[in-house]
Amino acid sequence: MTNLLLKNVRPMGQTATDLAITDGLFAKMAAPGAEEIDCGGRILIPGLVEAHTHLDKSLLGLPWYRNEVGPRLIDKITNEREVKVALGLDPRVQSERQSIQSMGFGTTHIRSHVDVDTHHGLAGIEGVMATREKLAGYVDIEIVAFPQSGMITRPGTVEMMDAALAMGAEVVGGLDPCGIDRDPRAHLDAIFGLAEKHGKPIDIHLHERDLLGGYSTEEIIARTLAHGMQGKVTISHAFCLGGMDRSYVGALQEQLAEARIHIITTAPASAPVPAVKELKELGILTGSGSDGFRDTWGPYGNGDMLERAMFIGQRNNLRRDDEVEIALDICTFGGAAIMELKGYGLAPGDKADAVLVEGETLTDAVVSRAPRKLVLKGGKVTARDGTCVLEAP
Amino acid sequence: MTNLLLKNVRPMGQTATDLAITDGLFAKMAAPGAEEIDCGGRILIPGLVEAHTHLDKSLLGLPWYRNEVGPRLIDKITNEREVKVALGLDPRVQSERQSIQSMGFGTTHIRSHVDVDTHHGLAGIEGVMATREKLAGYVDIEIVAFPQSGMITRPGTVEMMDAALAMGAEVVGGLDPCGIDRDPRAHLDAIFGLAEKHGKPIDIHLHERDLLGGYSTEEIIARTLAHGMQGKVTISHAFCLGGMDRSYVGALQEQLAEARIHIITTAPASAPVPAVKELKELGILTGSGSDGFRDTWGPYGNGDMLERAMFIGQRNNLRRDDEVEIALDICTFGGAAIMELKGYGLAPGDKADAVLVEGETLTDAVVSRAPRKLVLKGGKVTARDGTCVLEAP
Repeated sequence: MTNLLLKNVRPMGQTATDLAITDGLFAKMAAPGAEEIDCGGRILIPGLVEAHTHLDKSLLGLPWYRNEVGPRLIDKITNEREVKVALGLDPRVQSERQSIQSMGFGTTHIRSHVDVDTHHGLAGIEGVMATREKLAGYVDIEIVAFPQSGMITRPGTVEMMDAALAMGAEVVGGLDPCGIDRDPRAHLDAIFGLAEKHGKPIDIHLHERDLLGGYSTEEIIARTLAHGMQGKVTISHAFCLGGMDRSYVGALQEQLAEARIHIITTAPASAPVPAVKELKELGILTGSGSDGFRDTWGPYGNGDMLERAMFIGQRNNLRRDDEVEIALDICTFGGAAIMELKGYGLAPGDKADAVLVEGETLTDAVVSRAPRKLVLKGGKVTARDGTCVLEAP
Repeated sequence: MTNLLLKNVRPMGQTATDLAITDGLFAKMAAPGAEEIDCGGRILIPGLVEAHTHLDKSLLGLPWYRNEVGPRLIDKITNEREVKVALGLDPRVQSERQSIQSMGFGTTHIRSHVDVDTHHGLAGIEGVMATREKLAGYVDIEIVAFPQSGMITRPGTVEMMDAALAMGAEVVGGLDPCGIDRDPRAHLDAIFGLAEKHGKPIDIHLHERDLLGGYSTEEIIARTLAHGMQGKVTISHAFCLGGMDRSYVGALQEQLAEARIHIITTAPASAPVPAVKELKELGILTGSGSDGFRDTWGPYGNGDMLERAMFIGQRNNLRRDDEVEIALDICTFGGAAIMELKGYGLAPGDKADAVLVEGETLTDAVVSRAPRKLVLKGGKVTARDGTCVLEAP
């Protein structure tokens, strides 16, 4: 393993210094013979954390997909299930393509929801697991077993979720208990039951807005407390927290904080979103992700978590430098805390997962989104000048 | 003047063909000895139209400005007026820097609001006019005399606006008649009076939301009709059209359509925005712009109108390819129509203002935002591979 000495580097935009990396960890002193890298005064941040994406279904590398899908959520879900077959989408190949693109942008950790349904069975889980194994040491991938097409409405799905978790998916997924599964009690009992059986955390998609999403959130809070799962449950999207009735939302957020439920927001421009500054004030751990991108849902997105920090800033009207830094924190330390990553950071003893970014300040780095000069994973160079050292299939 | 033959080019993403440019105009046949350019099958679109920006006050090229400004609109206005002095901001230099950056992204036409106030007088107008002259032939700049700090609240401003228009500003600006000037009648009478006196169109900033903005809009409509200014008035931002009461907004939009008032939206993620598909259905001309960027208001933005098309798409939840193409149309033909540009387009006889973009389809070009391969202004190459041929001061 190469030992490094990063010369003239500014950790988190602070004063320039030298940083040693020994045996894959940041160290107080350079090892003898450590290879020196001149960082040219650039800023070093810990590896970007992609805490919500869908590795199994991007269309990267395929001919352009002309999107003509209908406006409802269920239109997109149905279309996707069918198009996957028509295009012969291979989750192994697609997840490798997307992971490599993300690595080029400085992502070192990915939490991916992976579809589990009666149509495609466990093919998605198997494909992403193959990519995880192939890319071990380059990027860490965590798998959420995700019942995209519903569980209760499609008998057999719960059993497949069970199998996915037994195979090695680390997190129990879920989806709109009212809006998609039309049976919140059965849906939530199922996922909390799977979580208890496998001793694994939960990360549930919740697109439901306003009082409907509020109702589902209340039910999630109740089960989190009943199962003693404080600190082990995440709600992704949580559009209901962007609702207009701020006194109701405020009360709900206090209950979320008490139950130590985490929030992951992708900060979409067209949907109500959780107010990240309010979450921070309440001590609610907040992470972010690209969501699915370049897929049958829509053409946007590229996996750049620095750009995602910009989107969070724009969506939450964060204009002051100290506010934009909150957005970046969500895309680094926030996601890392939710995923309970060990040794995440730039302190001595932390794993040397880090990104050298361009810019005078952290805010400059976020809004400029210049190609990443260098990406390290466990002290190994995984990308240079915006390009991953691995070639996509 | 160089005559060109663009080989293997796809106008608006259509089938590859060859396009001739003779004496600065697209032509049916290539002139003898025309220089051939291999376009490699790339897509050609007309020059991007930056229809709403503030050339006089970006902080491009200056050391990073740490933003610590307060949350209200008036905080930002006051802070800016003072910081401009503290930083010694030179509108001539800043407008040239911003214009050159925009040209690198493929912008060929700019409408810039330029501050007119009793603090800085006409320095902004003079500075941007100097840049306009210097960059003539590379980019067309239209100037809106803009009373950023209010007119009625700051006596002497109307006279300065009058002077700015006499000097050569092409458009009469205005700003939040209720929210900033606190006297909608006096504010609107002043700008319509100036428009009548100088025979020039109006482009008014309207951040006022919901019913307050609706009230100001109603007053603008009434004066547009009374002054016979149909087709000559633009409302920029128009956040009130993003209001929740869609039946009220619907009725207001119908009145706007009847008065042939145009809308310019920058599609900010954190404010309510006009629904561009509704405007299109009503036949309301719609343009877009970057707004101010990298200034004392906030760190975001870069002048890339292809990225702006993406923001419009994201903010309006445009996912289908035909919808994303609407967003691109706003950033090209829409702005051009509002600015009444003559000979805008890719047809024979049109001015050869065009951009060669990367991507399989128009939507791919918008979401990928790759560096522009080539930018032409009147058939002259003004940028290559994302970089303007001119050097910024």
